[in-house]
Amino acid sequence: MKNIYIIFFGLLCMGSCGPENDKVSEVNQTPLPSWNEGASKSAILNFVQSVTDSTSASFVAIQDRIAVFDNDGTLWSEQPMYFQLAFALDQIKKMAPDHPEWNETEPFKSVLNNDLASVMQQGEHALIQIIMASHGGMTTNKFEVNVTAWMKAAKHPRFGRPYTDLIYQPMLEVLEYLRANDFKTFIVSGGGIGFMRPVTNQLYGIPAEQVMGSMMKVEYDKENKVINRYPELAFLDDKSGKPVGIYNFIGKKPIAAFGNSDGDLQMLEWTSTNENSFMMFVRHTDAEREWAYDSLSHIGRLKEGFAVAAASGWTIADMKKDWKVVYPFELEK
Amino acid sequence: MKNIYIIFFGLLCMGSCGPENDKVSEVNQTPLPSWNEGASKSAILNFVQSVTDSTSASFVAIQDRIAVFDNDGTLWSEQPMYFQLAFALDQIKKMAPDHPEWNETEPFKSVLNNDLASVMQQGEHALIQIIMASHGGMTTNKFEVNVTAWMKAAKHPRFGRPYTDLIYQPMLEVLEYLRANDFKTFIVSGGGIGFMRPVTNQLYGIPAEQVMGSMMKVEYDKENKVINRYPELAFLDDKSGKPVGIYNFIGKKPIAAFGNSDGDLQMLEWTSTNENSFMMFVRHTDAEREWAYDSLSHIGRLKEGFAVAAASGWTIADMKKDWKVVYPFELEK
Repeated sequence: MKNIYIIFFGLLCMGSCGPENDKVSEVNQTPLPSWNEGASKSAILNFVQSVTDSTSASFVAIQDRIAVFDNDGTLWSEQPMYFQLAFALDQIKKMAPDHPEWNETEPFKSVLNNDLASVMQQGEHALIQIIMASHGGMTTNKFEVNVTAWMKAAKHPRFGRPYTDLIYQPMLEVLEYLRANDFKTFIVSGGGIGFMRPVTNQLYGIPAEQVMGSMMKVEYDKENKVINRYPELAFLDDKSGKPVGIYNFIGKKPIAAFGNSDGDLQMLEWTSTNENSFMMFVRHTDAEREWAYDSLSHIGRLKEGFAVAAASGWTIADMKKDWKVVYPFELEK
Repeated sequence: MKNIYIIFFGLLCMGSCGPENDKVSEVNQTPLPSWNEGASKSAILNFVQSVTDSTSASFVAIQDRIAVFDNDGTLWSEQPMYFQLAFALDQIKKMAPDHPEWNETEPFKSVLNNDLASVMQQGEHALIQIIMASHGGMTTNKFEVNVTAWMKAAKHPRFGRPYTDLIYQPMLEVLEYLRANDFKTFIVSGGGIGFMRPVTNQLYGIPAEQVMGSMMKVEYDKENKVINRYPELAFLDDKSGKPVGIYNFIGKKPIAAFGNSDGDLQMLEWTSTNENSFMMFVRHTDAEREWAYDSLSHIGRLKEGFAVAAASGWTIADMKKDWKVVYPFELEK
């Protein structure tokens, strides 16, 4: 089981375009403009109004207004593969000249031959090798340079745009609306912290220090005063790891949690033990504008979580029904 | 060696009185009023002026104004023992009725007999047993209740005041001055996160999510939707652990770092690789108002760090010479 989530980790997300400044959080006169009227939009608005009304029994002090967001499939797309896996595959190709042995060694040989089907057939262990080779064995500075360069150059195969264009406009509005109401917004992702942090401020208005995710082993090199990355997973921020990550990094139980898959269920369940709290799953139902998957998918599966959400009365945002637009670039038209 | 720092961890600090609101960071007309004029005060003022002057080559953007502070011996006292060890010893006594076997088992027997000399003679392993028994085996909620109750009730043996009264007024002013200049202030302590976070906002205006420290192993209990603490160290935030902790939690290299012991040296050295940066050690030189120790002490030893600081031109704040008052309660007189 653990390896499956190591793959989750390897496939994750990050970006590099979108809102170009820190002021995404200016108060909107009309909140959530890209949301259609309906139960989901009303639930978000009602929750925020109830916890910010100082005369209400459900009022929550500003310091406790903590909202956590999964990233892949919740703030940006995760198809046809986690963006972080696309990055890893591209890195292997970029590093290949220094590794002539990869021409004869699987799974690298298949990566270099663009034979993704063969890579996938080789199973989890192959993916782990690809992730470790592309994410470890360098300083944190070098890794950040690699990620930043990839974010600028790489294009998503379906849309022909930077991966970082594939962020969800309606979710940007939720982030903005919460911050306008004195919430502090955090990312809590199965993706790697080093892959997300170079772009989260630019994309979402979330600074690096409010981004938690899975972590590779890193060590401080006293002589050279740099931090080195090692090809070993140190923390997997998925499933029961999410409440643990939130406890260790934030030290407060959130009052709002947003996810899209069973990997987010424990985060939402833990959040729901706060008396005045809001839990939402994004459901991928729009094959035309985005993708339709959910319960069928190996990536971002939402099955157990859907059942709990339905039984508990949590909000389920249906992309097709609830969102006027999916991506910010649709607004340019 | 590692065990020595596990003891550091066990002895650490936290508090529960002081500035009673979040607004410690209001701009002071005259910054650093409790600092005597001199090289240390000038160095702090000059640094902040240089990085906040948008016309200067040393200007630093607001999002990169990250300042990190050790806690024990830097923001509050750490004598005659780390406050966290005092807490641990008191917890053992409180828990004793449920552990009749402790009456016959060392090191608990000596703790219950108030024979601290015997505890110390039993060495590091005894201290680790005391810390693990008092810090593990309960939910994070229960631990927070224990810490909060202790902070309110316990009295420091020398001053007869709550431990949380023993915070440094001049350092509160540094925190305040930095925040007034758009710095984000973080604690990076060898002490435990669960011991510090219940009081850092109240004491220092630093919210829980900006407090990193050593961590016990915690796991999420899916059935009961709580987080349990286990008697096992998961992360030691000391020496080379401090840059690692900062990378993982903040994701940015600080531009200002404040410490008081060799355990902070790597944090200051890493910070110093930022072009426009400020490094300061607090030196414990005042046996009358606080304590005089430094290079001689087993707790908070500053020896190697002092040599590096002197050679590198870092600021060394001399408590006796530089500080008009040490503790806030001196201002009440």
